Amino acid sequence: MTRDFSPAELRQAIRAGEFNGNTSGIAPGYVQCNLAILPADWADEFLRFCQANPKPCPLLAISPSPGDASLPLLGDIDVRTDVPSYRVFRDGRLSEEVADIATLWRDDLVAFALGCSFSFEEALLADSLEVRNVSEGVNVPMYRTNIDCTPAGRFQGKMVVSMRPFKAADAIRAVQICTRFPSVHGAPVHLGDPALIGIEKLETPDFGDAVTVAEDELPVFWACGVTPQVALEKARPPFAITHSPGHMLVTDLRNSRLAVM
Amino acid sequence: MTRDFSPAELRQAIRAGEFNGNTSGIAPGYVQCNLAILPADWADEFLRFCQANPKPCPLLAISPSPGDASLPLLGDIDVRTDVPSYRVFRDGRLSEEVADIATLWRDDLVAFALGCSFSFEEALLADSLEVRNVSEGVNVPMYRTNIDCTPAGRFQGKMVVSMRPFKAADAIRAVQICTRFPSVHGAPVHLGDPALIGIEKLETPDFGDAVTVAEDELPVFWACGVTPQVALEKARPPFAITHSPGHMLVTDLRNSRLAVM
Repeated sequence: MTRDFSPAELRQAIRAGEFNGNTSGIAPGYVQCNLAILPADWADEFLRFCQANPKPCPLLAISPSPGDASLPLLGDIDVRTDVPSYRVFRDGRLSEEVADIATLWRDDLVAFALGCSFSFEEALLADSLEVRNVSEGVNVPMYRTNIDCTPAGRFQGKMVVSMRPFKAADAIRAVQICTRFPSVHGAPVHLGDPALIGIEKLETPDFGDAVTVAEDELPVFWACGVTPQVALEKARPPFAITHSPGHMLVTDLRNSRLAVM
Repeated sequence: MTRDFSPAELRQAIRAGEFNGNTSGIAPGYVQCNLAILPADWADEFLRFCQANPKPCPLLAISPSPGDASLPLLGDIDVRTDVPSYRVFRDGRLSEEVADIATLWRDDLVAFALGCSFSFEEALLADSLEVRNVSEGVNVPMYRTNIDCTPAGRFQGKMVVSMRPFKAADAIRAVQICTRFPSVHGAPVHLGDPALIGIEKLETPDFGDAVTVAEDELPVFWACGVTPQVALEKARPPFAITHSPGHMLVTDLRNSRLAVM
């Protein structure tokens, strides 16, 4: 992808099997989403879990009805074909990674599109803040915490957070910027001492890659979209599908449209 | 003051010599101001200093013209009589503390009313945050920092900050709340390690009283209205008047009206 595709062009390329890569940095300015797909008899509880935990699970759109693969609020989307890579879970275990799920689609499946940190990272970068995982060219470090999510039916678990280090004045600015974007994780949930939220060592993230944290920086922690994936794996529904990490659903919605002010 | 005076009633009582106390907690809901009065040939530079340093010196109103003791934007105010206690400085040194300045008033004096932390403390308390200096019944601790103010003419100096400790989640909430109030010091300027802004020991504030900081709390630092007073004393104008600490100008402006959103 050497030129800037529009989201619609990008999805067309994905549909045609011409693009199956990581979507980071692709179609800048547009909202990218975490995707979770569940059978209808699990979807209501997952919807309640998202509603009860909006910081880790900011729900942007849901299938109009079970079996309907469109997400009209987010563009001309077919969730069966428009994500570069999917993970299929059976009984809570990863069973396969596939380029489309057309042959796996069922009349009872419901898709959930959740906000992703790419949107607020773009807003931070646009304010000339340095986002360490971007400048170091790695995945953001993510950690399991001791913060309980509010349970809903069979879904429960601890919150997973992502971490970006900042000098204090920039951390304050990051709080201000991200407060404008509640539908993509919003303001940080913690900053400073990692032990206070049950993180032992910043050097060994549970997901993603470690980044440098300077002496004069504070680690700043955001609720992370891996939280619902962990809850989903723990709940062990017989069948579920998610995007593959970093391979997001790219929508027609502009990031700026998510700003509440 | 056992009942809630309106600001106008309170100023009338002060004018009549019936009240000369600390205004903390009096006329809740209304903006209280720091006051600085300077001769016209110093006022332009002080105005530029405030303009260049809006976080420590948030200017809410200025005399309509030299010698005019009213501040019509803030209410039916006479700055010569409506503050419970004044400090008079000659050549930068405190020379007297007086109940009114009617006999000291001159045709070339210009009054500056600057926002004060009482306004944002009220907003924090209204959100059920604990403001430690309030719950411990002491003056807020204030510290000289190594942060340079932007100089303007003869006015210059380091920023003075006030400190309130919070758990991280409450510190993030405090940033959100105070961001709405840029004209009363706005968002914090620092949080976390005091040494990074040149503060050696939290236990020994340069002004005010020390407060308890728990193990799981971060010290959060706001630009403080003592900053212009320190700059003023350092500049050594031949004549200047300020309010006495804690004895503020109480205005008819509601704190809620200062919220930018």
